Amino acid sequence: MNDILHRIGTTASIDDVSAALTTIPGLAAWWTEDTTGDSAPDGVIAFRFAGAGGEGFDMKVLESVPGKLVRWEVVDGPPEWIGTTIRFDLSQDGDYAIVLFKHEGWREPVEFMHHCSTKWASFLLSLKKYVETGAGDPSPNDVQISNWP
Amino acid sequence: MNDILHRIGTTASIDDVSAALTTIPGLAAWWTEDTTGDSAPDGVIAFRFAGAGGEGFDMKVLESVPGKLVRWEVVDGPPEWIGTTIRFDLSQDGDYAIVLFKHEGWREPVEFMHHCSTKWASFLLSLKKYVETGAGDPSPNDVQISNWP
Repeated sequence: MNDILHRIGTTASIDDVSAALTTIPGLAAWWTEDTTGDSAPDGVIAFRFAGAGGEGFDMKVLESVPGKLVRWEVVDGPPEWIGTTIRFDLSQDGDYAIVLFKHEGWREPVEFMHHCSTKWASFLLSLKKYVETGAGDPSPNDVQISNWP
Repeated sequence: MNDILHRIGTTASIDDVSAALTTIPGLAAWWTEDTTGDSAPDGVIAFRFAGAGGEGFDMKVLESVPGKLVRWEVVDGPPEWIGTTIRFDLSQDGDYAIVLFKHEGWREPVEFMHHCSTKWASFLLSLKKYVETGAGDPSPNDVQISNWP
């Protein structure tokens, strides 16, 4: 098993970070504008990316504890993603709300996993920018890191 | 064992990317301005970071194959880094020079590893910016991702 790990911190409130991870408008403001579905526990959220020809991911919400934890399972999307899980652990460290991110359970450390790791970093910086300034860089205006969307 | 993985692509030439990874001025232009030492095989490169109180990493150059591969071993620095290895594999994919990055051999997936993963992504985007525009974002002008340097 192979995991993608990241950590960001923001001077925004943990409640604002939590809202950005647990509501459809919040998620649409930093990951992809084309976000629909049900972000409550047991709901499924559909994330679609214009730059990837409208393809994307369906996430089942496994856990959603305000200010603490969000956990998703990938139920549809690229074969490498299906069955993997994504978690965001939130905590306060002095003046900073900290997000510990894990995308767990990759079967092989394929080149696509390398790409997704860098892309997750750029989207987490978009999350940080959104909660601090009110404007993130969600798809289709996301940072381009290579020849892959 | 746990690895940090990333992938970036750039329209700059693979020779320019290679120079940015194998020369002291090249490395200083995207990672940290305070880069000194010997970047030839068996040499040791010292990377120091003003934002981290002048601390940093000493890397022994294990391999340096122009246009193909750079491999370092961390011989001094934070305890979590010592003995880990870093590799950059270069290849051409159509119009893009691709960098596959691995920081291999972390003993535990500690919170600091999460931080370093996100920080590596931001520095690799600085590398991309440097080879494409002539100006990167090396320390001390690096992107701040949290309360940690």
